[in-house]
Amino acid sequence: MDGAVSFEHIIKMAKNAGPVPTAIIAAHNIAILKAVQKATQECIIQPIFIGNEEKIRQFSDDIGFDISTYELLSIDNPIEATIAAVDLVNKGRAKIIMKGQITTRTLMHTIIVKRPTLMKGGFLSHFAISNVPGYHKLLSFSDAALNISPGLKEKVEILKNAVTILHHLGYTHPKVAVLSSMEVVNPKIESSVHAAEIAKMNKENTITGCIVDGPFALDNAISATAAKNKSIQGPVAGDADFLLLPNLDSGNLLYKSISFLVNAPIAAFITGAKAPIVLTSRADNENTKYLSIALAAATLL
Amino acid sequence: MDGAVSFEHIIKMAKNAGPVPTAIIAAHNIAILKAVQKATQECIIQPIFIGNEEKIRQFSDDIGFDISTYELLSIDNPIEATIAAVDLVNKGRAKIIMKGQITTRTLMHTIIVKRPTLMKGGFLSHFAISNVPGYHKLLSFSDAALNISPGLKEKVEILKNAVTILHHLGYTHPKVAVLSSMEVVNPKIESSVHAAEIAKMNKENTITGCIVDGPFALDNAISATAAKNKSIQGPVAGDADFLLLPNLDSGNLLYKSISFLVNAPIAAFITGAKAPIVLTSRADNENTKYLSIALAAATLL
Repeated sequence: MDGAVSFEHIIKMAKNAGPVPTAIIAAHNIAILKAVQKATQECIIQPIFIGNEEKIRQFSDDIGFDISTYELLSIDNPIEATIAAVDLVNKGRAKIIMKGQITTRTLMHTIIVKRPTLMKGGFLSHFAISNVPGYHKLLSFSDAALNISPGLKEKVEILKNAVTILHHLGYTHPKVAVLSSMEVVNPKIESSVHAAEIAKMNKENTITGCIVDGPFALDNAISATAAKNKSIQGPVAGDADFLLLPNLDSGNLLYKSISFLVNAPIAAFITGAKAPIVLTSRADNENTKYLSIALAAATLL
Repeated sequence: MDGAVSFEHIIKMAKNAGPVPTAIIAAHNIAILKAVQKATQECIIQPIFIGNEEKIRQFSDDIGFDISTYELLSIDNPIEATIAAVDLVNKGRAKIIMKGQITTRTLMHTIIVKRPTLMKGGFLSHFAISNVPGYHKLLSFSDAALNISPGLKEKVEILKNAVTILHHLGYTHPKVAVLSSMEVVNPKIESSVHAAEIAKMNKENTITGCIVDGPFALDNAISATAAKNKSIQGPVAGDADFLLLPNLDSGNLLYKSISFLVNAPIAAFITGAKAPIVLTSRADNENTKYLSIALAAATLL
């Protein structure tokens, strides 16, 4: 079903997977609680709240979300709350971790360094998927939130993580565009060199399960007209399913462009640990948070 | 008139500046010729064509653009055509250079290395300005096309170039957001360190004529709601006029996002040489090319 995967399909998968026990760290935020409420009512998740009890109960009351039947661990300190969430996963009592009012840095530092029991020898990366109006299918990309300056090896790991998720969502041969700021290799532009190397590894079957091409600038990866104007051919040009981005600065910029300039729905989480980590930005709206919960749950089906 | 500058205002300035003699290199492209036709009819420019005569006349015929009264230098080789354009500027016979069907690399290499007589000791950078729906004013940014990995010094030069243009367009104190992938300084993320340093230079009056803050991720620079959600304050948060981007990969990505995801109008050119160089991508549409001509002409008023 390459090219036919939709958010509706992802939500359906999530409902089939649920209710997934989900540890929510520091949930005292209206957008987070509304997203959790919706995912709970749709039987996608069963929430376990970890944080400041008073604030969480007050905010839940404010939006009419009755959380009295759900577990709530009263742990105010964000690091201790994160450790408790990790322990719930290790005990098999939670299968998703969700970030609330805690910085990404504190959350990830606690998971990676302070309580690394969630690490299973895998490589952590951020995966995002969006429904951009005007594009003829969903567009996914990495890494918008975690890996700062991935080298060639790290980019291959990021790509493999993404392909695993895409296969799980129903893509058989996702089309991968490795992005740079141009379509030709320029030795001064590392991203263009990486792109050519990763495309070559795909041709030589070192990277499988997907069709990779690059380097691309964004336009030629997602616009058939732009690709044609520049005489750029191949199956990926103008038809990418997944964009492998040069670095965190550009990945974050694409994520924020889609969220705040295009105003398009987007779902995202951290993959590679024992449990998916839903890590939306505090600035994201409730729909983004809800879709991200659904995406994480769908990968558990 | 900070915040009140519009594309209408820029076009009005361009008409007051025109007709500006403009050397167009390798114009054999429908989108380019349509943009040149419009700018010519509106008395913004007076074109001087340099390129393959047969192709240029044929494409002009195809769109009903009578170019018989305009100068046409029949020079097929793109490097020689670029040198001819540079010489026209040096003789005072052209005041804008426009890129047609020639790669940016060939054009810029010829101007910077082969015929560097346009260089006036200034720093070359790319400046873009766009009208993004939903944002309450024009949004400008650098560098989307030229400087690959600008260091701190180069970023300051890029910013100074932009401020000069913005003052010219009518901004008195443009609000500048220096972008990174986060709002706090992380020593591992160079763009966040640069941002804090540039903001400090502005506070210490080393950089003047603008209000600088940073680091910002895109959302907090352009969304008051996002900034509020993250408790980010100051005059620039959510209200940026200009974004100083981390590097070419991210700058190019923002340009392409605005063009191909948002489908918003955008104008851009290279500044810092003796004449503005209009350098739209071959994938850009005719409106982008027309607006870019107008923007370049407006800076000559």
